Amino acid sequence: MRPEVLSTMSAIHIARAGGPEVLQGTTWPMPQPAPGELLVRVEFAGVNRHDCNQRAAARHSNPRLPANIPGLEVAGEVIACGEGVSGFAPGDFVCALADGGGYAQACIVDAALAFAWPRANARAGAALPEALFTSWYNLVDLARLRPGETVLIHGGTSGVGIVATQLAAKLGARAWTTCGTDAKCAISREFGASRTFNYRSSDFAASLQAAAADGINVILDLSGLRYFNLNLKLAAERGRIVYLSSAGAPGPVDGTAFMARQVWTTSSRLRPLPRAHKARLAADMAEAAWLDLGAIRLLIDSEFPLAEAAGAHQRMESGEHAGKIVLAVGHDGADAVIHHTTT
Amino acid sequence: MRPEVLSTMSAIHIARAGGPEVLQGTTWPMPQPAPGELLVRVEFAGVNRHDCNQRAAARHSNPRLPANIPGLEVAGEVIACGEGVSGFAPGDFVCALADGGGYAQACIVDAALAFAWPRANARAGAALPEALFTSWYNLVDLARLRPGETVLIHGGTSGVGIVATQLAAKLGARAWTTCGTDAKCAISREFGASRTFNYRSSDFAASLQAAAADGINVILDLSGLRYFNLNLKLAAERGRIVYLSSAGAPGPVDGTAFMARQVWTTSSRLRPLPRAHKARLAADMAEAAWLDLGAIRLLIDSEFPLAEAAGAHQRMESGEHAGKIVLAVGHDGADAVIHHTTT
Repeated sequence: MRPEVLSTMSAIHIARAGGPEVLQGTTWPMPQPAPGELLVRVEFAGVNRHDCNQRAAARHSNPRLPANIPGLEVAGEVIACGEGVSGFAPGDFVCALADGGGYAQACIVDAALAFAWPRANARAGAALPEALFTSWYNLVDLARLRPGETVLIHGGTSGVGIVATQLAAKLGARAWTTCGTDAKCAISREFGASRTFNYRSSDFAASLQAAAADGINVILDLSGLRYFNLNLKLAAERGRIVYLSSAGAPGPVDGTAFMARQVWTTSSRLRPLPRAHKARLAADMAEAAWLDLGAIRLLIDSEFPLAEAAGAHQRMESGEHAGKIVLAVGHDGADAVIHHTTT
Repeated sequence: MRPEVLSTMSAIHIARAGGPEVLQGTTWPMPQPAPGELLVRVEFAGVNRHDCNQRAAARHSNPRLPANIPGLEVAGEVIACGEGVSGFAPGDFVCALADGGGYAQACIVDAALAFAWPRANARAGAALPEALFTSWYNLVDLARLRPGETVLIHGGTSGVGIVATQLAAKLGARAWTTCGTDAKCAISREFGASRTFNYRSSDFAASLQAAAADGINVILDLSGLRYFNLNLKLAAERGRIVYLSSAGAPGPVDGTAFMARQVWTTSSRLRPLPRAHKARLAADMAEAAWLDLGAIRLLIDSEFPLAEAAGAHQRMESGEHAGKIVLAVGHDGADAVIHHTTT
């Protein structure tokens, strides 16, 4: 069953706002690539927290999709190219950022947001794009992390945390992370964190402040705003703090900490970035030989068949995962739920 | 009585922590300029909020001064140059940023932080340096205000507000300000503000939000943190917000507003900047022909003789002033308190 010879495809769509059970199988016409786009036969699709939020609210954010199909990243084979595409041809294997539509046998992606990727490592390819673009956007484009600096990543074993830790090391910076268990701290160190802090330990804030006496240059906070004041106390003079979520109660701003070291604070969301900005991020990554995408290791929490996407969402919303959850779509033998592997 | 031929000078020092009454007259040895420094016979000295805070806490922040003499800006004649000074010679008239010591007949300043200034406009020269360096540092160096952008200045008739409004216009940006009375709003418009908002009016926040529907690119908040959440709602995508004080109660951070438009927020204090950074700001200003320092208009709230510095502090702490308060030091006939003039 190769979708390129079919006029329809199977997909999972959001039937209505609700829990994981509203993710339902459906059949839709095979999409066609517009100029600059690729049609990809999806082998694996990545699952993101965004997908759960999209499902809960039934937000249909890409009007070009035939239905409300989630999925922001895929790995698979190019089966058709839109006009004007250069650098890719049918038969190439890629991983790419998608604007929804990943939970399907075929997905349209912007050729400017795709990278050549080894077919043998397909599953990791579906776990990479969102974490890679997010890590690069935040550490390089926004926070301008420099060699010799220290970055603290709150959420070290999240999909983004795992890649951001490695990106920081490649940049010549020191990566410290916070994680919710000692086991996750150990995983984070395996991925290159030089220091880790268990945020459920009783001396969490005190031990971080003691360790950060010289000041932390960049803080990437994947956990929300709950550490707003703590982060101000940890930051170095002219430090940069980037928040990826508004979860948690920040409480009143600590004015003394806010004024103390002239720290820059911002929020960041990859998805609403203009297409041209995302394309520039991809071009910058492609030019950075030191990045060596193939050498980035991914932590795969678990793999679910496409038809069991609801189980993937349950796992995501349990908060117990470490690393990425992926959906096996066109992969032979993708019929078992697999947990905790590293690729 | 020309200080250059004297071995002592009169000054006002902070005798102990307390109210304006602790500002007391004293006599000290004439200071000598170190390499790169100028000794300036002070004609006028500017008064800043910082001086009041320094007095209240009796902080003695410059150990090179013979006593705890406040004063961060002066205008006067160069009477001696330290080794290696180029560009200035005895007899030149200058205005300059000082590291304390301005409330005195003579003051040491860093030659890199001095500008040639017309002797005939001496009083304005003492009102300019702090406001100019602060405006440039925040609008140009930190917030990178660009032509065509809109900047909102909370505190439009403060010393900094008056200069920042003009700097914004010179940059080709639109300056909006907030002020505490309709009269101050009118003054702010005279200095170039294209829109003004009275923050004591009942519809202040609503009218600002309505006016800022397209988003404000840069917000310079001289009032403290009380508008932390309002500013987030006013800011444009990727706007920049700079706070110069931690006064006021910011309350809990509005997470939705914080995440909405990826705004950069920071705090800023000129005084603790490294000397090299201040020197770079001065060099950048000297290179910017469009800045045309001589054309910057100053709003002088009031002038007090040096011996009545306590009165100047009372005026500052009343909060009723608009524009700068200056001390007349070596100026003939500087024996009357003068209010509200524009130079």
